[in-house]
Amino acid sequence: MNFSSKLLENAVYEISQLPGIGKRTALRLALHLLKQPNGQVEQLANSLVRFRNEITYCKNCHNISDTEICEICASFNRDPSVICVVEDVRDVMAIENTGQYNGLYHVLGGRISPIDGIGPNELHIASLVKKAKEGTVKEIIFALSNTMEGDTTNFYIFKQLEGLDITISTIARGISVGDELEYTDEVTLGRSILHRIPFEVQ
Amino acid sequence: MNFSSKLLENAVYEISQLPGIGKRTALRLALHLLKQPNGQVEQLANSLVRFRNEITYCKNCHNISDTEICEICASFNRDPSVICVVEDVRDVMAIENTGQYNGLYHVLGGRISPIDGIGPNELHIASLVKKAKEGTVKEIIFALSNTMEGDTTNFYIFKQLEGLDITISTIARGISVGDELEYTDEVTLGRSILHRIPFEVQ
Repeated sequence: MNFSSKLLENAVYEISQLPGIGKRTALRLALHLLKQPNGQVEQLANSLVRFRNEITYCKNCHNISDTEICEICASFNRDPSVICVVEDVRDVMAIENTGQYNGLYHVLGGRISPIDGIGPNELHIASLVKKAKEGTVKEIIFALSNTMEGDTTNFYIFKQLEGLDITISTIARGISVGDELEYTDEVTLGRSILHRIPFEVQ
Repeated sequence: MNFSSKLLENAVYEISQLPGIGKRTALRLALHLLKQPNGQVEQLANSLVRFRNEITYCKNCHNISDTEICEICASFNRDPSVICVVEDVRDVMAIENTGQYNGLYHVLGGRISPIDGIGPNELHIASLVKKAKEGTVKEIIFALSNTMEGDTTNFYIFKQLEGLDITISTIARGISVGDELEYTDEVTLGRSILHRIPFEVQ
């Protein structure tokens, strides 16, 4: 691209470093910012820098947090005997948005993937096992993604927890609510049949 | 969305103020920034703030610029007797990218649109007319978008320039290079036939 301004070129370059944003979008965003009141750009810039510099992770569940212990772990309304194991922060948000879960979380920070050089030691597995051995935990729910790596991670943690008096479950897989049978892939449909549940009149 | 962190929530809110970026994308970008080295976020923030605060517009053509007179206007290799009138900075870039134009530009900053409250006085039309009256300009090329507002703006400027010894032209409209006839809309195809040009063996 042919920029007539070095400042514009820099701004576009920096914006286009973000994932999924190409040069054209970056240019559009930069020119948009130019039309905004001065304060707004500084507000954006400040909130990004503060976010990057001041954010911490909960010492207990490794969720993103502003404080040492996150809101969820610190809440008296949550059941500390149930822990849902997820890959990352977005999964916590997704489950929180359902409003169906009242236990705590444990954010692994990824899944075991030897190809990407991620072994069990790169993830927060040890602290989960330690927590499980302390005795308050009654159930651990695996909510990792349904891939080879997710399954490997589940299995690895399962092995580490062997011998402990803890129920280990995994979230149900099946046809999405509202989906039609004929368009569902056969693996999912197969699982739905295999893991059928008692019919309830609602 | 259910954020466990106020800092994250702020960052996501600020990012999602950008056009075309929703909450989900904003969250993805924020979490991406979190994984980047600290310096990179500050670099992004700085370049945005500097861009917003330090950028100026060329006094001559109103193009975006780091200096009082932009590179194009200041260049000795450009022909100051031809001026291409465009709506905004992106149009300058688009034409510069073709490498086919050697004259100067005049950025109007929009087009006349009474519905949006944009009249001739909101645009850089007076300075264009003043420039035209100074005598160096031999040709003015309209390169506004082909809409009602674009046509109105063209006509308004045309009227202002009446009586001056200046060739006024407009960029050619027609079928895109590589496009097929049968898929072209009839207005464009009609114009292509009306404004046919002498055949040249290349």
